[in-house]
Amino acid sequence: MAAAILALSVNAAYAEGPYRNPDNKNPNDVGEGTYPIPYKMPVVAEITQSLQRIRGYLDSVTPTRIVSKKTGQPITDLTNPVADAVIEPAKGDFGITVYEMGVVHAGLIKARQITGDASFTAMTERHLNFIGQTYPYFKRQEEQFKLERANSLARLIDPRSLDDAGSFCTTALIRSRLNKIGPDLQPIIATCSDWVANKQVRLKDGTLARNRPQAWSLWNDDMYMGVPALAEMAHMTGQKKYYDDAVKNVLNMSQYLYNDKLGIYAHGWNANNPDAPRFYWGRANGWAVLAMSDLLDVLPKNHPGYPKVLAQLRKSIKGISELQSGAGLWHQMLDRPDSYLETSASAIFVYVIAHAINEGWISPTTYGSIAQTGWQALSARINEQGQVEGTCVGTTFASDQAYYYARPTSVHALHGYGPMLLAGAEMIRLIKNPDISVEYKVRTYHYMPKGVQTNYREHH
Amino acid sequence: MAAAILALSVNAAYAEGPYRNPDNKNPNDVGEGTYPIPYKMPVVAEITQSLQRIRGYLDSVTPTRIVSKKTGQPITDLTNPVADAVIEPAKGDFGITVYEMGVVHAGLIKARQITGDASFTAMTERHLNFIGQTYPYFKRQEEQFKLERANSLARLIDPRSLDDAGSFCTTALIRSRLNKIGPDLQPIIATCSDWVANKQVRLKDGTLARNRPQAWSLWNDDMYMGVPALAEMAHMTGQKKYYDDAVKNVLNMSQYLYNDKLGIYAHGWNANNPDAPRFYWGRANGWAVLAMSDLLDVLPKNHPGYPKVLAQLRKSIKGISELQSGAGLWHQMLDRPDSYLETSASAIFVYVIAHAINEGWISPTTYGSIAQTGWQALSARINEQGQVEGTCVGTTFASDQAYYYARPTSVHALHGYGPMLLAGAEMIRLIKNPDISVEYKVRTYHYMPKGVQTNYREHH
Amino acid sequence: MAAAILALSVNAAYAEGPYRNPDNKNPNDVGEGTYPIPYKMPVVAEITQSLQRIRGYLDSVTPTRIVSKKTGQPITDLTNPVADAVIEPAKGDFGITVYEMGVVHAGLIKARQITGDASFTAMTERHLNFIGQTYPYFKRQEEQFKLERANSLARLIDPRSLDDAGSFCTTALIRSRLNKIGPDLQPIIATCSDWVANKQVRLKDGTLARNRPQAWSLWNDDMYMGVPALAEMAHMTGQKKYYDDAVKNVLNMSQYLYNDKLGIYAHGWNANNPDAPRFYWGRANGWAVLAMSDLLDVLPKNHPGYPKVLAQLRKSIKGISELQSGAGLWHQMLDRPDSYLETSASAIFVYVIAHAINEGWISPTTYGSIAQTGWQALSARINEQGQVEGTCVGTTFASDQAYYYARPTSVHALHGYGPMLLAGAEMIRLIKNPDISVEYKVRTYHYMPKGVQTNYREHH
Repeated sequence: MAAAILALSVNAAYAEGPYRNPDNKNPNDVGEGTYPIPYKMPVVAEITQSLQRIRGYLDSVTPTRIVSKKTGQPITDLTNPVADAVIEPAKGDFGITVYEMGVVHAGLIKARQITGDASFTAMTERHLNFIGQTYPYFKRQEEQFKLERANSLARLIDPRSLDDAGSFCTTALIRSRLNKIGPDLQPIIATCSDWVANKQVRLKDGTLARNRPQAWSLWNDDMYMGVPALAEMAHMTGQKKYYDDAVKNVLNMSQYLYNDKLGIYAHGWNANNPDAPRFYWGRANGWAVLAMSDLLDVLPKNHPGYPKVLAQLRKSIKGISELQSGAGLWHQMLDRPDSYLETSASAIFVYVIAHAINEGWISPTTYGSIAQTGWQALSARINEQGQVEGTCVGTTFASDQAYYYARPTSVHALHGYGPMLLAGAEMIRLIKNPDISVEYKVRTYHYMPKGVQTNYREHH
Repeated sequence: MAAAILALSVNAAYAEGPYRNPDNKNPNDVGEGTYPIPYKMPVVAEITQSLQRIRGYLDSVTPTRIVSKKTGQPITDLTNPVADAVIEPAKGDFGITVYEMGVVHAGLIKARQITGDASFTAMTERHLNFIGQTYPYFKRQEEQFKLERANSLARLIDPRSLDDAGSFCTTALIRSRLNKIGPDLQPIIATCSDWVANKQVRLKDGTLARNRPQAWSLWNDDMYMGVPALAEMAHMTGQKKYYDDAVKNVLNMSQYLYNDKLGIYAHGWNANNPDAPRFYWGRANGWAVLAMSDLLDVLPKNHPGYPKVLAQLRKSIKGISELQSGAGLWHQMLDRPDSYLETSASAIFVYVIAHAINEGWISPTTYGSIAQTGWQALSARINEQGQVEGTCVGTTFASDQAYYYARPTSVHALHGYGPMLLAGAEMIRLIKNPDISVEYKVRTYHYMPKGVQTNYREHH
Repeated sequence: MAAAILALSVNAAYAEGPYRNPDNKNPNDVGEGTYPIPYKMPVVAEITQSLQRIRGYLDSVTPTRIVSKKTGQPITDLTNPVADAVIEPAKGDFGITVYEMGVVHAGLIKARQITGDASFTAMTERHLNFIGQTYPYFKRQEEQFKLERANSLARLIDPRSLDDAGSFCTTALIRSRLNKIGPDLQPIIATCSDWVANKQVRLKDGTLARNRPQAWSLWNDDMYMGVPALAEMAHMTGQKKYYDDAVKNVLNMSQYLYNDKLGIYAHGWNANNPDAPRFYWGRANGWAVLAMSDLLDVLPKNHPGYPKVLAQLRKSIKGISELQSGAGLWHQMLDRPDSYLETSASAIFVYVIAHAINEGWISPTTYGSIAQTGWQALSARINEQGQVEGTCVGTTFASDQAYYYARPTSVHALHGYGPMLLAGAEMIRLIKNPDISVEYKVRTYHYMPKGVQTNYREHH
């Protein structure tokens, strides 16, 4: 990526960038600026093409075969497990059972639902079929050789964290099952959902917790690792207790982590030092709003938690929206304009904002433009190969800004792919939304509820 | 303009700039830094020269003759209107009836009042004489040819917005009339002031509104487009109801738009989404404080709204002052240090702060230095030709930061000229203010009420 | 110093820097970034070496002889004072009686206490012996020649401000006396402590004030210039009234200057304009927290002010910690990320945070990492000669941001040396603190109370 510098400058005439809005047909308009991002009305065909490019890339780098760890040769005999059998490593270092892949499947299912194009979930089917076929093999391998985390399906066979059990193994598998994509993986779902509901460490008040990096830590990320899983468990089984648990976790986590003054979430909380300095990491805020959005998608409207979760989501979306950068994306540290612009958080925000508009949870007015600008900035981060650029790699709940600022970004950070698919798909839905109109006037875009009357008579 | 970069740098020793304070006579003083702006005590003669340069430039680029739109040839026969008669276009694209020109006349009148130099309002007289002479012609042209917005005096003949009717056609014309500058344009004033008082769309509570870009939008700009006009109508006619309306609009607009936590105003508000994300555009904040200042200039001190408007102005000046950049100007988005430094907002702020000190509304202590530094930074934005650099062009009430950040600046944006004239003139008054003393001590400037005793004995 | 630019950039992949963490032994780890500062576990031997380098430099540039101002030749006859006798000027322009030298002695005494190495206070002894020997000479010189501020020991003979009387002449001399370093300078202490307790101008409520740059100004700096002096006077004499005065000043100053919303102190306050815009200068915040920390070191735990001062210190440390930059240091203006990163304030913060952890006033959790990162960034500002780089020179309480932003930094600004010695010494104590454990996990550092159990089983 070129490092186009938009420095704080004393005399700079204006923020210049390489892009001019093609929707302005007057090439001599002195009232038109240039932008650091493609600033224009999004086009469904272009978004669809971007999504297909990402899908194609992911498909190409996630093999589904068993090989020998030593020789790399395929292993086809699934009758007698051998110790060095592993799932062939993905070229992009993308594990097919990691939590980030759960978000990818969420994005692919969403893209299929919105575009009607079943090719989007072909990879989901391939992955789940493969898992269904090889699960018994790896389970027997584990019984014989006790490989622990070196077992390729360790997360499904022996989940030990919400990262293992929530996003992929519960949420994605239940959603695929309900959408009849791939085989019925109910036994796997059962193991993982049991971990989420019953085995993950919790505070005394029931809030999902971790004992790293500190004893009795809360991670904002766990709103996503836990809440959608609980919500889908309720959705699939009809058991209200899981909805109750999901709602409780949203509200408790918000109690501990949400900073009402800033309108955003701290990355984490330590029982060692409950009033510690806070770090407002972008992606963790993404997980929080995505969790609430996913929960509201299935939570019955008459559940007593519904208005509370909706109110918390609205507040959070407002806080996040007010921190969008002048370049359309959001910063690695949301409150720190000198930290880098990060892709995965930005993509989650664009998805959640667009989705909340489409669901009627928030107004298209103002929020529509914020989602659009965010998407346009994101679109420039999808390269020709279909890779997603600018995503912060896996990041622990840390205790100093230097760590967060210096996190590298990588096209191999899978965290950016699922959110990008979700964002693009939901933008298509927004553009086509029959209840919303968009006026391009005075060089910018105005989203509004269809039927609202504006008046530019003074200009004519 | 050179792009002297003051980047966020990890190891930068200090913010360096091209200017050294000439008031420090010790060339070897290691305690003296260098500045990005001319940091020194302002000199009346230099300010006066700057103001004359601006005045001369404006005078030279605003012709007052009628020409044929097709041929460019002068039209001198004013007996029979022709359809293609227009006011000769200004070289700088500066219309003589636009709202920005109203602010220019405010600046010229102020400069004349403070300096006693009548040459400042020669252009005002020329423009108003021309309008007085040609108004009947363009009115008949309109009756015959229905040119609508293409009629050169459309704003005066058929006002359709506060932009048309307020700043120039009501405020500037009334002030000129009261100061006996130019002819009596009472019929034009009547048309425009009727629009402001009675025809502009309003919320049910009486707040001046617009139906663009959204239905039932409030624009912070409209505090200036509406309030001084109402105030001057009251001032001219003695009718208290216009003061009441002006005060009500200040207080209502502040209710909807002022963010008490930040101490500044949001650019606008939509009834579609009353709790939408907010954008703190610089110039709109300028319009707000200028409106309150203009109102207090004429509002009787015993009006029940006086202390309320004064309190709101004081709060706003404090909030704005705390956001002044390290380079003396203010940012395009007041709360965003990575947006560019914008001239017109900065000039309005300098004017209002200096004026509020001179009127005794706020203390010279601290605020005097803020005005001085702001003026010194502004002075570097007046070029040799008398053009004002770094002003954001006309800007709509938008819904994303990318639009605001990318607004181009231009010497052809008239919005910067009137505020610059106002700021310079009021700075002359501040420097000469007999109630204020300024001490230059320990390399900086300390404004204080005259007679206050300081003590530097420990240094001697 | 190289100007490694970390600009706000639209497309920058991540904040890159020259340093890679040597504690990460995997050279191919794609999850490891690079840092603008040495990011690693601090090593006691390296810190000790840095401290010795600074000590050596200070020792080498602070001569203790009397010379003729005109000829530069030594004056050894101390029987008959001559008018042009002065203390030989320090090469680094470091006066041996200035308030900054008081902080240097505090740092040297602290380094000796923590390392057990008496060489740290050899310079303290040399300076104080010299002062003890020459005080009668300069006193007689003053009686004969009335040199006022030109007398080399003017601050001790005729103190006129808290800067003269507090940090060096009261605080450092009392601490040296109590630690039996150098001669007993009780008569000098008596003069200066009388100034602090009885002669400095105060507000009616007893708050220590100045009449510059405005009448009845409060300077946040004076928390340090006054409070530790009063505390040490109480400590030495056992007179509770001085503790009461110290506590009152902390609480009053905090009432006037602390911004609870931002969690930091304004630089000053003017009675002329009590609600003036505020400037959050880094070093003044340093003085505030250092004053509270020094007071708590000697204040009896059963003094009614103890919990109040502790609560105020805790709040302040939290506010300051949340403003640490991504490069480990703090900005010249704490709330302004486009102002430069300043050494002296950062060093005081690192000292106070580390000290507060070591004293059990705050938790090691989170704060330990903040201190560590701060120290690592500071360590890169000690050059080969032992000079401390990047310290803002002496700075008055000013009224505009441009002044503060443009303050030069200099290795000749003594303000950075004492804080750096304090910070390094206290970091050694933190690393060796038996009650704290530090885990290096997932590429960063986690400080915690010893014995707390963490769990990384999901990773194994």
